[in-house]
Amino acid sequence: MKEISSLIGFRPDIKVVDATLRDGGLVNDFYFSDEFVRDLYLANIKAGVDYMEMGYKASKEMFDVNKFGKWKFCDEDAIRGIVGDNNTELKLAVMADVGRCDYKKDIIPRSESVIDLVRVATYINQIPAAIDMIEDAAAKGYEVSCNIMAVSNAQEGELKAALELLGQSPVNVFYIVDSYGALYPEQIQRMADVYLNFAEKYGKKVGIHAHNNQQLAFANTIEACGDGVDFLDATYSEMGRGAGNCGMELLLGFLRNPKYCVYPVIRFIEKHMQKLKDEGIVWGYDYQYLMTGRFNQHPRTAIAFTKEKRKDYSEFYKEVIAQE
Amino acid sequence: MKEISSLIGFRPDIKVVDATLRDGGLVNDFYFSDEFVRDLYLANIKAGVDYMEMGYKASKEMFDVNKFGKWKFCDEDAIRGIVGDNNTELKLAVMADVGRCDYKKDIIPRSESVIDLVRVATYINQIPAAIDMIEDAAAKGYEVSCNIMAVSNAQEGELKAALELLGQSPVNVFYIVDSYGALYPEQIQRMADVYLNFAEKYGKKVGIHAHNNQQLAFANTIEACGDGVDFLDATYSEMGRGAGNCGMELLLGFLRNPKYCVYPVIRFIEKHMQKLKDEGIVWGYDYQYLMTGRFNQHPRTAIAFTKEKRKDYSEFYKEVIAQE
Repeated sequence: MKEISSLIGFRPDIKVVDATLRDGGLVNDFYFSDEFVRDLYLANIKAGVDYMEMGYKASKEMFDVNKFGKWKFCDEDAIRGIVGDNNTELKLAVMADVGRCDYKKDIIPRSESVIDLVRVATYINQIPAAIDMIEDAAAKGYEVSCNIMAVSNAQEGELKAALELLGQSPVNVFYIVDSYGALYPEQIQRMADVYLNFAEKYGKKVGIHAHNNQQLAFANTIEACGDGVDFLDATYSEMGRGAGNCGMELLLGFLRNPKYCVYPVIRFIEKHMQKLKDEGIVWGYDYQYLMTGRFNQHPRTAIAFTKEKRKDYSEFYKEVIAQE
Repeated sequence: MKEISSLIGFRPDIKVVDATLRDGGLVNDFYFSDEFVRDLYLANIKAGVDYMEMGYKASKEMFDVNKFGKWKFCDEDAIRGIVGDNNTELKLAVMADVGRCDYKKDIIPRSESVIDLVRVATYINQIPAAIDMIEDAAAKGYEVSCNIMAVSNAQEGELKAALELLGQSPVNVFYIVDSYGALYPEQIQRMADVYLNFAEKYGKKVGIHAHNNQQLAFANTIEACGDGVDFLDATYSEMGRGAGNCGMELLLGFLRNPKYCVYPVIRFIEKHMQKLKDEGIVWGYDYQYLMTGRFNQHPRTAIAFTKEKRKDYSEFYKEVIAQE
């Protein structure tokens, strides 16, 4: 049972990371208006959020800049167009995917950038490539996290080997990423235990990025928080791929640190998020995501079901179990 | 940490209770079509659900039978019109509220009824009246549960006194009812511990009825299940007052007992639940329910906000905190 003191008090080490532009960008191809991004930046500052993820550092050789909004690429000028020199307490982050970015060229030295944190996203079988990227970013002066995606599919032995390697790298934070929304809180607790053992051994922090396929993104995030995980990802209105993420409005209501304030989040949601939905941008919990999450599958089939506006849930259920 | 064996195996004592007609009836004044109720009954049988709550036993002196559907009153004939003599494994339940029913007259002996379980709903300050009802129902031959509503507002000392009294009554099951959707899983764990201590002392079972104000109804239900709570309430598509309940489609996907089958639930949802929503029946998670839940308030203001189709969430937030 968790300590009663931690149910009332708070752990100052906790960091809240707003991933709305990055994971939400997967829903609308990163076409956010400047007003949206600027208001989100200001809301995060007022709400006491610790990090704001601006988007991806994606390769312009692999991805057509005319087919995506600018937050897929996060050019330094684009970010500065919103935040200036960012003379605030809010730190800025970008995500860089193994195999989908030109990090040596596109990630400039931190001394020339407003970015603070580079989040390296990797599958467990790409850890050596991730470590190359981690070393590059650390050498350039950044804080670095390693976000191990689809961790619900990793063998415990593999995961431990990965964390052992990462422990010896200059990474600052290991992330639990439940990409498929497949994990239950009791499994998050066990996974956090594995991560925290390596984190303690190597002086690292642990983070969590949850998906809402089974309406557990918030529950899994606060479970991890109670277990000692410090970096907590959330998005406004749960905006994110497929079933979306842990809601910022839920998470800040839970955290007891008086630096956090949910009201600016509510204001932002009221002004911007219903409008996105009215424009036809679709995300969030639905039965098709429950099904892929429950069977620990990538949500791509559920996303296609959603795009096709299908409602034949029982047929989709049969398609999902046919893939088992 | 929960035992790994229980993450893979299952506890045969677990009972799943479908509360769709009863809690869902609060959303549409109990006007369900006979086809809906019949299909739900058949889906529950196929899904392996243990109990189906048909509705309330409300007083016809207090409530106008012309202003509500028949499931607010659950006349024996109405139930038999759907289930015949119910020669199935599925048990039937009704809810009776303290102070809102004529139980001495309206609850007939079990030998003349298809009902198996009477669920007595009470606030903690009405326990003596609840015990009168429990004794009446037990003497008539029924299984009886006592559902302590709004338990997030009860003092621990009061709660223990209530469970002590109930322990000495002929009730079979004590229910944790998080009417306001205010509790976090870590609080559910502590509350389950209190309930289970009295249950063990007096040879009773414990149940949980959760609300989804903070997207935690499913998480709180499986937390309680992992803690040793046996009776688990759920509703199809989370249909229930305000933010709704724990989804049957979520819960059956979690439970490992092979007797449970989620496919009939999906089929029912596909046929009936979207239709209800298209008819303008509104329930489910939304920001206004998060706010009342977080501040441990009755959802009535959030329900009014919803009915008025208001979208000024930040104004509502201020109204909620003004009540603190």
